[in-house]
Amino acid sequence: MIRLYELCGDDPELLFSPYCWRIRAVLTHLNLPFESVPVRFTEKETLGFSGQGLVPVLVKDEEVVIDSLQIMAYLDSAVSESDLLGTDVARARALSMDAMISALLRPHLSKLLIPTIFSVIAEKDRGYFRETREKRLGCTLESMPTAEAILPDLAPGFSALNAALAESTYLDGVAPGATDFSVYGLLMWAYTLGFSPWQPYAEVTRWFDDLLAAYESRQGPVKRAVAQ
Amino acid sequence: MIRLYELCGDDPELLFSPYCWRIRAVLTHLNLPFESVPVRFTEKETLGFSGQGLVPVLVKDEEVVIDSLQIMAYLDSAVSESDLLGTDVARARALSMDAMISALLRPHLSKLLIPTIFSVIAEKDRGYFRETREKRLGCTLESMPTAEAILPDLAPGFSALNAALAESTYLDGVAPGATDFSVYGLLMWAYTLGFSPWQPYAEVTRWFDDLLAAYESRQGPVKRAVAQ
Repeated sequence: MIRLYELCGDDPELLFSPYCWRIRAVLTHLNLPFESVPVRFTEKETLGFSGQGLVPVLVKDEEVVIDSLQIMAYLDSAVSESDLLGTDVARARALSMDAMISALLRPHLSKLLIPTIFSVIAEKDRGYFRETREKRLGCTLESMPTAEAILPDLAPGFSALNAALAESTYLDGVAPGATDFSVYGLLMWAYTLGFSPWQPYAEVTRWFDDLLAAYESRQGPVKRAVAQ
Repeated sequence: MIRLYELCGDDPELLFSPYCWRIRAVLTHLNLPFESVPVRFTEKETLGFSGQGLVPVLVKDEEVVIDSLQIMAYLDSAVSESDLLGTDVARARALSMDAMISALLRPHLSKLLIPTIFSVIAEKDRGYFRETREKRLGCTLESMPTAEAILPDLAPGFSALNAALAESTYLDGVAPGATDFSVYGLLMWAYTLGFSPWQPYAEVTRWFDDLLAAYESRQGPVKRAVAQ
């Protein structure tokens, strides 16, 4: 049996961590049943057994694995149906793609989503969240740029994805692979918090809806926050 | 013997086509000797035998291959040392990376470089070049945005590449592959025309200088135009 430790909001069913979504989508895609352990921001002691404080943490047969890409590599080695990252050049390309798309999307999605994250997390998490995010961003949560001001910064990343997805069904070709699930996780971060800023990009929308439908057909509807 | 038909300026030694540079760098990397056939914009009739008018065209043992990615695929199949694109997922990832990085860099590099291209091409090419580029851009060559106005648009692409190259020596891992040569070709377009707009990005600079040094150690110094 697999256990997946995932970040949650005040509502334990509201899961929004991009890195946890990568693994949730991957396990679902591989038809591997798993038990979810929701963890709030200030419940890091729950993860003490993993020797660090970040989600996702995957536990399988006493094996403890952290970090979304390391978990994908572990699944490739431990589960015969799993070939997410591949080897050699295929794997190097997946890691380069992940670094590129993370650089393009993550900082801007983070700015877009932080106010909503603040509103959906547990009361007891808010002090910690406000302090760490205000320090990182160099401004108060109340003085952050508006969604309207942030959206243009997402255009290069979504345009690039759209160009790639105009050429093939998935980023990894005829079936979704590590690259697809890495990007899908980042987009689920926005989606679960009530945003779909890729909607003007037809190929990204087609691809996202396809992966979401595949997930929901197995796991039921995804819980979303209402955008503020 | 291999023949490579390449775009050139008024000076037949000034080669600046990004797609031709991909193949020139690949053939050099693979230690495959080739004869270069320089072609000017209005000398398309030279390419008539290929059934179309675009460079690069590669000819090997009566085989005629067009398009830089198709040429890489052809070399993989015809030359035993060549494994540029790989197969299956590795190949799909290379094509996705190429589409992404092209979307991020190509339109902005094109705007940056067009005035210099106009100044280095043969007199007889200028009417054709002005007409096609002004139509594509919707403005005259004289009313184009300045380099200073264009450079910020290149930042997302170079930042993304920099993030990927901070993680590994080459985009394709421990040795350069199709993805590296695809991006390198795009950057050689700027370099040969006198621009190096990736200089603020330390990892991109390290990687570019490494590929350029490997090329020049075999082929001698690359001819560059003086930036206008």
